[in-house]
Amino acid sequence: MKTPEEFRAEAHKMADRIADYFQQIEQYPVKSLVKPGEIASRLPDFPPDHPEQMDDIMEDFEEIIMPGITHWQHPGFFAFFPANSSYPSVLAEMLTAALGQQGMIWETSPAAAELEQRVMEWLKTMCGLPADWTGVIQDTASASTLTALLTAREKATGFSVNHDGFDKEKKLRIYCSTETHSSIEKAARIAGFGRKNLVKIAVDDNFAMNPSALRDAITKDLNDGCRPCCVVATIGTTSSTAVDPIAEIGKICREHDIWLHVDAAFAGTALVLNEMRHFADGLELADSYVFNPHKWMFTNFDCSAYFVKDPDLLIRTFEILPEYLKTRTRGQVNDYRDWGVALGRRFRALKLWFVIRNFGVEGIRDKVRKHLDLAQWLAGEINQSPEFELLAPVPFSLVCFRFRPLQISDESAIDNLNEKLLQLLNASGRLYITHTRLHGKYTLRMVTAQTNVERIHVEKAWTLIRATAGELIKSGNTGE
Amino acid sequence: MKTPEEFRAEAHKMADRIADYFQQIEQYPVKSLVKPGEIASRLPDFPPDHPEQMDDIMEDFEEIIMPGITHWQHPGFFAFFPANSSYPSVLAEMLTAALGQQGMIWETSPAAAELEQRVMEWLKTMCGLPADWTGVIQDTASASTLTALLTAREKATGFSVNHDGFDKEKKLRIYCSTETHSSIEKAARIAGFGRKNLVKIAVDDNFAMNPSALRDAITKDLNDGCRPCCVVATIGTTSSTAVDPIAEIGKICREHDIWLHVDAAFAGTALVLNEMRHFADGLELADSYVFNPHKWMFTNFDCSAYFVKDPDLLIRTFEILPEYLKTRTRGQVNDYRDWGVALGRRFRALKLWFVIRNFGVEGIRDKVRKHLDLAQWLAGEINQSPEFELLAPVPFSLVCFRFRPLQISDESAIDNLNEKLLQLLNASGRLYITHTRLHGKYTLRMVTAQTNVERIHVEKAWTLIRATAGELIKSGNTGE
Repeated sequence: MKTPEEFRAEAHKMADRIADYFQQIEQYPVKSLVKPGEIASRLPDFPPDHPEQMDDIMEDFEEIIMPGITHWQHPGFFAFFPANSSYPSVLAEMLTAALGQQGMIWETSPAAAELEQRVMEWLKTMCGLPADWTGVIQDTASASTLTALLTAREKATGFSVNHDGFDKEKKLRIYCSTETHSSIEKAARIAGFGRKNLVKIAVDDNFAMNPSALRDAITKDLNDGCRPCCVVATIGTTSSTAVDPIAEIGKICREHDIWLHVDAAFAGTALVLNEMRHFADGLELADSYVFNPHKWMFTNFDCSAYFVKDPDLLIRTFEILPEYLKTRTRGQVNDYRDWGVALGRRFRALKLWFVIRNFGVEGIRDKVRKHLDLAQWLAGEINQSPEFELLAPVPFSLVCFRFRPLQISDESAIDNLNEKLLQLLNASGRLYITHTRLHGKYTLRMVTAQTNVERIHVEKAWTLIRATAGELIKSGNTGE
Repeated sequence: MKTPEEFRAEAHKMADRIADYFQQIEQYPVKSLVKPGEIASRLPDFPPDHPEQMDDIMEDFEEIIMPGITHWQHPGFFAFFPANSSYPSVLAEMLTAALGQQGMIWETSPAAAELEQRVMEWLKTMCGLPADWTGVIQDTASASTLTALLTAREKATGFSVNHDGFDKEKKLRIYCSTETHSSIEKAARIAGFGRKNLVKIAVDDNFAMNPSALRDAITKDLNDGCRPCCVVATIGTTSSTAVDPIAEIGKICREHDIWLHVDAAFAGTALVLNEMRHFADGLELADSYVFNPHKWMFTNFDCSAYFVKDPDLLIRTFEILPEYLKTRTRGQVNDYRDWGVALGRRFRALKLWFVIRNFGVEGIRDKVRKHLDLAQWLAGEINQSPEFELLAPVPFSLVCFRFRPLQISDESAIDNLNEKLLQLLNASGRLYITHTRLHGKYTLRMVTAQTNVERIHVEKAWTLIRATAGELIKSGNTGE
């Protein structure tokens, strides 16, 4: 492919292939059924010396790669949290790829910098976030949380870790609940705090952080001569979408001058609905906040929206200015390379702009409302079924449940049964769900938040779950 | 857009728009000519409530966004290091966007995991890298370098910083040359070493690290009770593509059990050519190595190829295993979330696979060889011109030079003149070059490595540079 006209022909073929994919997506098994090594064994050990035609590459794509794809965009994808795409988002990514922007500083792509600034303002409006916050797009919530911990570290030490390293400091302590996402521990290690200084606070029966346990932990640390540095609270934990009491936690943080980072990676999108904003009560007390449009706002992975109260602290944490990056516009514009870990930055604002405009805010609200209703419907079905039980409240679009047939009472047998059920369901190719543990119980997690999921998909899934569970019991193959 | 058929129609329009873009790209000013705030002022303050048609969005894209695009894919883009795209890479990104994979673990996309494993093997073969290395794709060289420093930190401390934080340790020291990229300092801060513990080693006249100065610095630190932890050596520095003497540095590192990370972010692609591999002599002594296919290997940003000698150390540095990510394939497969900072991962291997196959290894070699020749041609022209001078050797495809008219001898006047020249050239819209400082001199940097750059573009640029310089002198507006 050497000319724009050759590219044009191939791009049209690809447009059709992608449209076909979306049309036929329900015919694929949701979770790839290949075994470890199966794909690799079909790929040559050595790269080709000479050019190969796109038709040949695409033939291999269909035959070798496609069987190894787990279809995140399938409406039967109920696993993890979704990584949702949508039609306008895919169109934007096509354009992003063609423009090949590297938006490390304003000058290398003024449009990328200023569109990012504007769409982050739009997100604030859409979600009712504090008007005085400033937003920036990061790649993932892991990066956003790392960014928060680093800024907290530098604020607490007067920027001395950046300059001198850690060694002169009091022990810096971080707090999160036992249900907090693993990326907090990863960030605490990366930033040099050490996992020992990540204090896990107990949760209540609904898996939300217990604020008096937080207060006790902080008091104890102060008495021990440590420096409480940062609390990470969650709106919508990974296991069960529990909501930590942000207002109470925020009050404690303000009393002790502790950085409050709020992680709403998945559930944050729900704040587009007025009726959901009570979950974020007290959010104005936060110093930083993250939610991922790439999860529930129909915008291709990766796109993580990170907000801070004080952008100067953020920039001061990351800023380095070598000669080859000095520009005449410095100080007048946002050079986003100083707002996070990576120097290079893709033009991620474009897809958010496409999605928000093509859906319209009301269109996004309709989708989210539908997903919440689907979860409530499923929770209702489970509640009415004597052989299934809910294992956590359902505040958003995640339903945590398990099969608990009346004739089995041993907890570890029930665990095994549900693990077996999960495997059979996923092996069917008709849906993909994942698991967690809640109060020690093996728990099935089913998220009704895929871009294109409709009532029919959830109904079919529920029918399959009941049927498969019934067969498991009948076959006696219950894992006991 | 609600149906695959509506998407199909829009995707075909987008395919044409992108092909048109590649056809017409030379008609755009290379560097955007907008002023700060100009784009933002044309974007509404509030998001639309109701859906907008793609035609309307694309109209705004053309009118508002396009003027703010700096055209990284324009063959007149000679700035920074390139962030090259290519036709097969754009096609792959289209597909990547549609599939919407999130390859955090093998199970969430077996094809993404196993194709990544294979193409990283291919890159080793193509570049003659040590056969016992293991590769993984990171987003940027910043992330790769951070990953290296963290692994070095954990190896040096027996994983105690991860667990306990920094405070019991001897001072950990990192070494790099004064010419090393700013991402090393950024990573040293993030990882908690502190910039004070980043020791900048002097360079020789060709801007390469002086190994005896490195040895002295290490000896001094050992005498002072510090723990030398990591040396970062560079093949192709950002300012002038200088090459640190890897073999000598590696020997020193082996003597003292110091981690050696080699940063070849830009120049690493040149190793596809046998005749360039001498620059990497001693590379087998490195513990980790990064080069960016998104710079010079025609693969869309972001795609950074990171290699390690011991993947177990890497995984041990990053691994965390919460219940909701436990899978039955754990241990049999590569779960790449444990190979770097981010949990979530795009399907980046696909574009590398498309590029390597559609170009063929020889096709990539031809392009790289052409770019090297263009730089030699330009350097020759500059050498023959009494009013211009080279300011650094030209080992790869970057030419560092300045205008030095015979009638001006004051160094700061020459600096001002070249700064003025740079501004005029970039304001012409016909090319984009950037600057650095070498031996204190304001230096013009011109990289002849854009995917589609041909001799004609470099000739035109050189003609424009001479003409603009001549006019500057004639007008007397020389910045003195």
